[in-house]
Amino acid sequence: MRQQNLLMPTLREVPSDAEAVSHRLMLRAGLIRPLATGVYTYLPLGRRALRKAEAIVREEMDRIGAQEVLLPAMQPAELWRESGRYDVYGPELVRLRDRHDREFALGPTHEEVVTALVRDEISSYRKLPLTVYQIQTKFRDERRPRYGLLRGREFLMKDAYSFDTDWEGLDATYRAMYEAYHRIFTRCGLNYRAVEADAGAIGGEGETHEFMALAEIGEDTVVACDGCGYAANLEKAEAAAVQAAAVEEAAPPLERWHTPDIRTIAQLTELLGPEASRLMKTLLYVADGKPVAVVVRGADEVNELKVQRALGTDRLELADAETVQTVTGAPVGFAGPVGLNVPLLVDREVAALSEGIAGANERDYHYRHVRPGRDFSLAHTGDFREVRLGDRCVRCGEPLTLHRGIEVGHVFKLGTKYSTALGARVTGVSGTEQDVIMGCYGIGVSRLLSAVLEQHHDEQGIVWPLSLAPFHAHIIPVAVADDTQRKLAEELYERLQSLGVEALLDDREERPGVKFKDADLIGFPVRIVVGKKAGERVVEYKERQAPEAEQLTVEEAVRRLLELVKPAASEGA
Amino acid sequence: MRQQNLLMPTLREVPSDAEAVSHRLMLRAGLIRPLATGVYTYLPLGRRALRKAEAIVREEMDRIGAQEVLLPAMQPAELWRESGRYDVYGPELVRLRDRHDREFALGPTHEEVVTALVRDEISSYRKLPLTVYQIQTKFRDERRPRYGLLRGREFLMKDAYSFDTDWEGLDATYRAMYEAYHRIFTRCGLNYRAVEADAGAIGGEGETHEFMALAEIGEDTVVACDGCGYAANLEKAEAAAVQAAAVEEAAPPLERWHTPDIRTIAQLTELLGPEASRLMKTLLYVADGKPVAVVVRGADEVNELKVQRALGTDRLELADAETVQTVTGAPVGFAGPVGLNVPLLVDREVAALSEGIAGANERDYHYRHVRPGRDFSLAHTGDFREVRLGDRCVRCGEPLTLHRGIEVGHVFKLGTKYSTALGARVTGVSGTEQDVIMGCYGIGVSRLLSAVLEQHHDEQGIVWPLSLAPFHAHIIPVAVADDTQRKLAEELYERLQSLGVEALLDDREERPGVKFKDADLIGFPVRIVVGKKAGERVVEYKERQAPEAEQLTVEEAVRRLLELVKPAASEGA
Repeated sequence: MRQQNLLMPTLREVPSDAEAVSHRLMLRAGLIRPLATGVYTYLPLGRRALRKAEAIVREEMDRIGAQEVLLPAMQPAELWRESGRYDVYGPELVRLRDRHDREFALGPTHEEVVTALVRDEISSYRKLPLTVYQIQTKFRDERRPRYGLLRGREFLMKDAYSFDTDWEGLDATYRAMYEAYHRIFTRCGLNYRAVEADAGAIGGEGETHEFMALAEIGEDTVVACDGCGYAANLEKAEAAAVQAAAVEEAAPPLERWHTPDIRTIAQLTELLGPEASRLMKTLLYVADGKPVAVVVRGADEVNELKVQRALGTDRLELADAETVQTVTGAPVGFAGPVGLNVPLLVDREVAALSEGIAGANERDYHYRHVRPGRDFSLAHTGDFREVRLGDRCVRCGEPLTLHRGIEVGHVFKLGTKYSTALGARVTGVSGTEQDVIMGCYGIGVSRLLSAVLEQHHDEQGIVWPLSLAPFHAHIIPVAVADDTQRKLAEELYERLQSLGVEALLDDREERPGVKFKDADLIGFPVRIVVGKKAGERVVEYKERQAPEAEQLTVEEAVRRLLELVKPAASEGA
Repeated sequence: MRQQNLLMPTLREVPSDAEAVSHRLMLRAGLIRPLATGVYTYLPLGRRALRKAEAIVREEMDRIGAQEVLLPAMQPAELWRESGRYDVYGPELVRLRDRHDREFALGPTHEEVVTALVRDEISSYRKLPLTVYQIQTKFRDERRPRYGLLRGREFLMKDAYSFDTDWEGLDATYRAMYEAYHRIFTRCGLNYRAVEADAGAIGGEGETHEFMALAEIGEDTVVACDGCGYAANLEKAEAAAVQAAAVEEAAPPLERWHTPDIRTIAQLTELLGPEASRLMKTLLYVADGKPVAVVVRGADEVNELKVQRALGTDRLELADAETVQTVTGAPVGFAGPVGLNVPLLVDREVAALSEGIAGANERDYHYRHVRPGRDFSLAHTGDFREVRLGDRCVRCGEPLTLHRGIEVGHVFKLGTKYSTALGARVTGVSGTEQDVIMGCYGIGVSRLLSAVLEQHHDEQGIVWPLSLAPFHAHIIPVAVADDTQRKLAEELYERLQSLGVEALLDDREERPGVKFKDADLIGFPVRIVVGKKAGERVVEYKERQAPEAEQLTVEEAVRRLLELVKPAASEGA
C-alpha cells in the first residue's frame, strides 16, 4: 500500500487523556480513534493488525477441530430469563426493545444462545463431542471503560463453547483448547502466564485458567513461581504455610490493654514496632445475611474468595458499622476473636502464633497475650489470606513473584450449569438422557492487541511482533522527487508485493525526519530506506530494534526480508 | 472436515413457514437457524459460505485500493442529530440507552461515523481521494423481516465510502467501484443486472446504480433491454413513446355519459371492450400539502417517483376520499381532467390520444370524446407512467423485458450531503476550503448468499457455485464399516486436504440413501463415492449437476478436482 493516501493520522503529541502506553501508541500511530467512551473505530493499520490476530486465532481453533459459527448479537430476553441471567447481569448488559416492544440483550457472551442451539439440534451422544467458536463483536456496558481497547464497551472477542457427554471428554477438550491458547499467545509474541483461577464459590467443580499478559497496567495480580511454573491469580493463589504450628509454650494470661484512639492496624503497627508481626486483624462480614468474623495477621489481607469457598456462598460483604457495633458491642476498630459470638474463620498463620495482640470488642481496648485455641476457637482454621511478596510456593517452596497482568483469555469448565437450565440433553450410550457437559473459552481479540503493545514498544513507538504487524516492511525513499530513489523504491515495492511480503511505501513528499519518526512510531519489523546510494542499488536495511542500519543491495535486502517473513507466514499451515 | 461431528442438522421436511426457496434450502441444509424474527445463527456450513463471500468482496475492494476499517456498531445519537437523520429514520433504527442514559443507535449504515472521522482526521486535498470499507454486522429493525437472510434485522454488510475533492474524482472512484461490483457478483456466479436507479426526488445530481439478482422472489422490478443492455429499476425506467402525436382530426364534442355504479377502471374496461384503450385514468395526489392530478391511460400505472421529480418534492401521497370529494366535487371513481381546478400532470401517452373517455367529476357520469388540449390543458405533459410489458427500449427500440430482482448491491454518488451537514471540509489545491465529495457503496453479504441460492438449486437441493461452496468436494464411503472403502476414503481425504482442496468426509454410519440425499441437499460441486470398487482404487466422480457419475481411479479423480478447483482458487491473486 502507498502511504500518501493511507488513512493513518499519526500524532506528534501524546494524547493527554490516555493513561495506558498501548492506548497512547494506538492513538499516536493512527491505529484507532474513539467514537464514544469505550467505543473505537479501527483505522486501516489497526484493522490490519486486528485481522492478523483474528487469523491466528482462527487457525488454531480450526486446528483443534473447533467449528466456526456466527451467533446473533441480538438475543431475546426470554433466553436470558431461562438461564436466570437477565435480571442478575446488571447494567453491564446492553438492553433494547424492538419496534414491537420485545426485549433484547446485545450479546456480551453467548452461553444461552449456543446452549439453546445444541438443545434444539443435537439429541444423541453420537454427534458429540462438539466445539463451536466465533469471532464477533461483543457489547458490555462497563462501569469504567478505560485504557483504550483494554476495557471497552464494544470489542472483538473469540468465544468458543464445547459439548461433551462425560467429564473425561470435557477434560480432553479443555486440554486441547488450553494448548491452542498457548500456541495463539506464543505466536502473538506475548509474555504471559496461564494461571489457575477461581470458578466462583458455587462452581466448585469448574476448573478454570486465565491467560494473563504480564504488564504493569494490568488490573489483576498474578502469583507465579519460577521454580516449578506454578501460577495462579491472586484470588486463587495459595502459598506454603509460613510458620510451623505454635509451640506448646506457656503464655501469660490474657491482658486488657488501654489503647485510646487506636483504631487502625497502621496505628497499632507503629505503636508495637517489631511486635507488630503478632497482630491479629479481625474483619466482620455478612455472608448470606448472617455475620461471620475472619481473623488474619495484621499485615495480611483477607482473600474473600477463599472465605466464600469455605462458607459455600457467593454472597459475602463487609459488615457495615452498625452491624459491627451490634456483633462486637464496640465501634469499628476494636473487633477481636475473643468472646465473639459468631462463626470465626481463623487463618492458619494466625492459628500458628503462640500468642498475639487483638481487639477486645470494647471501645479503646485491645488484648495482649491472646492465645489461639485457648482464648478463641480454632474449629474453622484454614487459608483465608491473600498471597503476598515473600511467600513461598505451595508446591516447591521457591519464592513466589507477583506481577500485574491483563486477562487476555480464559478457559472454563462450565459443567452442566447452562445445559440444565436450558434443557440441553442428549441420549447417552446407555440410552438414558443426560445433561450435556459444557466448557467455554474466550479470547479478547481487540484487548490482545493492547496487551501486545504494552509489552512491545520503546521510546520511539511500537515494536510490532512480525505475526501481528500491519505490514512487514516500510520502504522509505528519502527524496521522492529524486527519480533514481523513487524508481528503486517503486521497484522494491513491486518486487516485495509479488513475493507476498506486505510492504508500505512512504511516497509522501515529507522531510526525511518526519518520515523516519513516523516509521519508528508505527514500528513495522523492517525499515528499508532508499537514499543517496540508490544509483548503486544499495539501501539501508534496519530491523526495528537493531541499533544500526545495514547497507545492503536491494537483492540482499529482499533475501533478508524473505528469510524473516516466510517461516512465519507458513507457521499456521 | 469429518461429517460425523459436524454441526450440520439437515431436515427432511420442508419448513412450513419458509416461503422463499433459498430460505427453505438454508434451513434444510443446516446453514442457518432462526433465533428471533429476522435474526439468524450461521451454522458451520453457512459460516463457511459467508466467509467465502466476504473473502471475494475483500479481495475486490483491496484490488481497487479501498482501505479496510472497522467502525463501531454503537453510534452516539448526537452524530445522527448532526446529519438530521436521528428523528427521520423511524422505527427501523435500533435505539438504546447506555447506563448513563445516553442515547445510541445501532448502525444500520455508517455515513455519519465515517464523515465525522474524515472531518476530524483529514484537512488537505493531498490526502484524497480516499475510499474506506468495512464488512460488518448491521442492524435494521425491518417492519417486515422475511425470506430468511433476504430481509433480516441483523445482517452482514460491506459498506464503503469514498471521499474526493472534485466530481471528476468521484466519477472515477464510482466507476472503479462499479466495476469491482461486477467482478464480485460475477465471481459469485450470480445472474444479475446493474440497473439505473433513482436517487430520490431531491438528490437530482446523485447518480446511482443498483445491482439486482434476477429471481422471482425479488421485491423489485427490473426493466431490461436485451438489445442494447439498458437496464433500470421500475421506478427509474423509461420506455419509448408508444403513440405518435395525436392526428389533427375532427372529434365530436364532449358528451356526458351516464355510468351508474361504474367506479373502477376494471368495470369501465369491461363495459367498453376494444374502446378501453382510450380510457383516461385520473388520480388525485397531495404533494407538499397541495392537491394535484395525474392522468395516465387506463391500463397504465402512475410512477410516483417520476411525478415527484416533475414536482420537485419527496412528499407525495394519494389523496384520501374527502380530498377527492372536495377537489372534484364527486366521490372517488369519477375524477377526470376536464374542468379540474388543480395542477394537471398529463402522461404523454394520454396527450397523444386523439380522444378518449374520462371521469366527469360528477357522481355516476363520465365523458366521451374527451380531447386532450381542447378539453383540458397539456401545459404539464411528460412521462409519468410505469414501464410495462410490451413497451420498447427508450434507447434502441427493442422490446423491454421485466424481471423480478433482489437488490444485492448499490453504488451511490452522495455528493456533499453528509460532508456539508457534518462539516467535512478540506483545503483544496487553490487554498480555499471546500466540502468533501462523497460516494457510498453497499453490498448485502448475507443477502447475497440467499440470492445465489435462489438461482442455484434444483429439486434435490443446493447447487453451489464453486466460489461460495462451503466445501469443494464431498467424499462418501458407502459402507464405513468396510475396511477397504474406509481406508481409501481416508486416503483420498488426506490427499485432498494436503492439496488445498476443501473436502468433507461423510464418515457417518448411515444408510447410503441418507448420505446421498444429504449430499445432494447440501450440494457441493463434486461428490466422490467410494464403494464396491474401492479394492481396484476406482471411485464414482460426479459433479453436482452432471446427469451421471463417472468411474475414475482415485488419481484421476484428484486430477479432475484440481483442474476444477485450482483456477478458481487463484482467481483472486
